[in-house]
Amino acid sequence: MICLDKSYFETLSKVPRLNLINSCMGYKSANLIGTVSKDGVTNLAVFSSITHLGSDPALLGFILRPTTVPRHTYSNLRESGYFSVNAISESFIRSAHQTSANYPKEVSEFEATGITVEWKQGITIPFVDQSPVQLLCKYLNEYTIHENGTLHVIASIEKIYVNESMLSDDYWIQLDKGGVVSINGLDGYAKTELLERLPYARANKDKSAF
Amino acid sequence: MICLDKSYFETLSKVPRLNLINSCMGYKSANLIGTVSKDGVTNLAVFSSITHLGSDPALLGFILRPTTVPRHTYSNLRESGYFSVNAISESFIRSAHQTSANYPKEVSEFEATGITVEWKQGITIPFVDQSPVQLLCKYLNEYTIHENGTLHVIASIEKIYVNESMLSDDYWIQLDKGGVVSINGLDGYAKTELLERLPYARANKDKSAF
Repeated sequence: MICLDKSYFETLSKVPRLNLINSCMGYKSANLIGTVSKDGVTNLAVFSSITHLGSDPALLGFILRPTTVPRHTYSNLRESGYFSVNAISESFIRSAHQTSANYPKEVSEFEATGITVEWKQGITIPFVDQSPVQLLCKYLNEYTIHENGTLHVIASIEKIYVNESMLSDDYWIQLDKGGVVSINGLDGYAKTELLERLPYARANKDKSAF
Repeated sequence: MICLDKSYFETLSKVPRLNLINSCMGYKSANLIGTVSKDGVTNLAVFSSITHLGSDPALLGFILRPTTVPRHTYSNLRESGYFSVNAISESFIRSAHQTSANYPKEVSEFEATGITVEWKQGITIPFVDQSPVQLLCKYLNEYTIHENGTLHVIASIEKIYVNESMLSDDYWIQLDKGGVVSINGLDGYAKTELLERLPYARANKDKSAF
């Protein structure tokens, strides 16, 4: 094992430090957040920080650095109050990643990257047509993380759209059946394959069973 | 696509609702948090919510529901101020998952599940010997998420231990080289394989390139 301590990685230049710190805590979720501006320009941005917060009520959170590219996402979702979360599949990782480029506000990342927009009846928020799991979310609150000035945005899950083949009888969504990827660091996209679902762990279980 | 809306999933019983909401936002990181009590009892608990917050300074966050099993993790890390984060590999998913059982405070999950504790020179926090990426973290702060009463714990990364074979020249850690898994929902463990690392996205790139 190599040991890199804080005083060492603080001396690294920007890109290696981003690579190291972004990849050291494991795989991240791979989603595109879809929004629309009050002028009707659709926006799409890749996010790897969307995390489950609780199931009752159904909540998620994500981290936003107000000074970087997805700031259009933030202004749009504050204006409309809503956004979509769209799982990234193996078949469109390149166009999904391209949404992280710094396009001007009047350019839609859907058009710029060739991702197909899907409009659902009665909903004014854009979805990613190719995505096998899509969420409609409602902005609830935000917490400033004073240690580095990022925002932790909290939202409720209002609707879940999922390919029928991925939904099991007990309502678990098997992500690999939709080719959903995970993110390794800033720029690594990984395909995944279920090893197994494990039973609820009980303290009195015979140790030989695991 | 099936559409499940909020009024529908609020009627589901506890387990299906947990399955659905925990699996709908993609893959999660798979780590064991190691701590020790002031009485010297080591503790280990699986966490799927550890998320990158920023690289300068190097920060991570995770979500803690004070009323569920990993409460020993919380009391320990508040007492000592430190904890370890240990990546879960394919070779020990069953014993890692077993740490989620509700063991009494005087029982060490290391002993109960057969995971080998590693003590590093000069550090009083336990690590997982089998883990190919290990972090020493320092508690900094916590934010109560008022929407559901969970805690968002913020910590700095003090040291990173990584298998040399996983560390690339630009300091990116290739997780699949260490067999690091990701979590699908509450109980699904998935192996991963790198598809590709994509170049930094630029707005003026020819669309045919992605």
